[in-house]
Amino acid sequence: MHVAVNAAMSVDGKLASREREQLSISGPEDFDRVEALRADCDAIMVGVGTVLADDPSLTLDDDSASANREERGQQPQPIRVVADSRARIPPDANVLDEGADTVVLVSEAVPTEHVTSLSSVGATIIEAGTSRVDLESAIRELADLGVENLLVEGGGELIFSLFEADLVDELSVYIGSLLIGGRDAPTLADGSGFTSDYPEFELVSVRRLGDGVLLEYETD
Amino acid sequence: MHVAVNAAMSVDGKLASREREQLSISGPEDFDRVEALRADCDAIMVGVGTVLADDPSLTLDDDSASANREERGQQPQPIRVVADSRARIPPDANVLDEGADTVVLVSEAVPTEHVTSLSSVGATIIEAGTSRVDLESAIRELADLGVENLLVEGGGELIFSLFEADLVDELSVYIGSLLIGGRDAPTLADGSGFTSDYPEFELVSVRRLGDGVLLEYETD
Repeated sequence: MHVAVNAAMSVDGKLASREREQLSISGPEDFDRVEALRADCDAIMVGVGTVLADDPSLTLDDDSASANREERGQQPQPIRVVADSRARIPPDANVLDEGADTVVLVSEAVPTEHVTSLSSVGATIIEAGTSRVDLESAIRELADLGVENLLVEGGGELIFSLFEADLVDELSVYIGSLLIGGRDAPTLADGSGFTSDYPEFELVSVRRLGDGVLLEYETD
Repeated sequence: MHVAVNAAMSVDGKLASREREQLSISGPEDFDRVEALRADCDAIMVGVGTVLADDPSLTLDDDSASANREERGQQPQPIRVVADSRARIPPDANVLDEGADTVVLVSEAVPTEHVTSLSSVGATIIEAGTSRVDLESAIRELADLGVENLLVEGGGELIFSLFEADLVDELSVYIGSLLIGGRDAPTLADGSGFTSDYPEFELVSVRRLGDGVLLEYETD
């Protein structure tokens, strides 16, 4: 499977303010680019923190993009995937609506009643890992569902975990021309962080886009 | 006074690992660029956290750069400035050696004996602010000492405070092609962070340099 991470951050590497307030980091040019990435992938993945903070739909807005997918023999919408070790996602989250199929990745530590309520709203549950989602085996199970191209949109906890497990092939970062600041604000890669053997990338593209810049890296 | 901030960070906005371990984010091309910035400025400023973590000398390595400064009527070395509200800097820090003049910015909360020991090793003390350094008045006092061009090299606490006080004219960020990660790792701008009225910049230059990219912003 090919795993691409895409995110927008401030000049100081933040995805949002310390209050997790959603703010406009990129602009219309980058929205179009992200929409094209989404239209091309088989599944879009986020961490539960992103669902709790932003309640995104993770669906294609553009009907013609869905029509193109169907012509190519794909589902009209990419599968939505939420990494959510304890199934904290509320059953009325937008990502669980009828706009597309949704897979929730949980660990064995998940409360049974949460699994039941997620199943009842139509979500597919993949259980992998004891207390936290084992991303490597979860991604293998996604591959069994036919996912060949996975687009990861954040947040920083999930992105770090994917790099820690050495599962990322490609990283695109849009850097908006603003400063957010804050030692407690979420960054592109949070988690415990590396203290040695830092992943090194190849910078394959640098491009001004709107008021900011898009950096693209090969990471494997 | 013209205040330029310059720093090197990882793709995810970190200046170092959570253990504050110094690591090589940029390369020789960026070292040369930073050396040129230093050679041109009147003073180089860091926060005490950077002194405690890295113990930098903040002097020009290149004798010809010092000679050029003297030809231009400048001191051979830029003044070294440390923002250090409580004067935690150890008197044997490299930044207090005889390689250049050093100014320590402290607040009124500084213990008297710390001021005495810093003065005894030749540091100039500027007291501004009650419990934390009042950067605006400290910078006015630096201007009175003849500083017209101030280069700020970090860390993230000082950089955030300078943006919070709206004192920065220019920001250069070198982004090395590696990931550090860590919710507790120091970032380009830490502090409490903005939650509204985020400073917005103009991206004036984007340039590949070594294995990474240099972004230059006008910030005022």
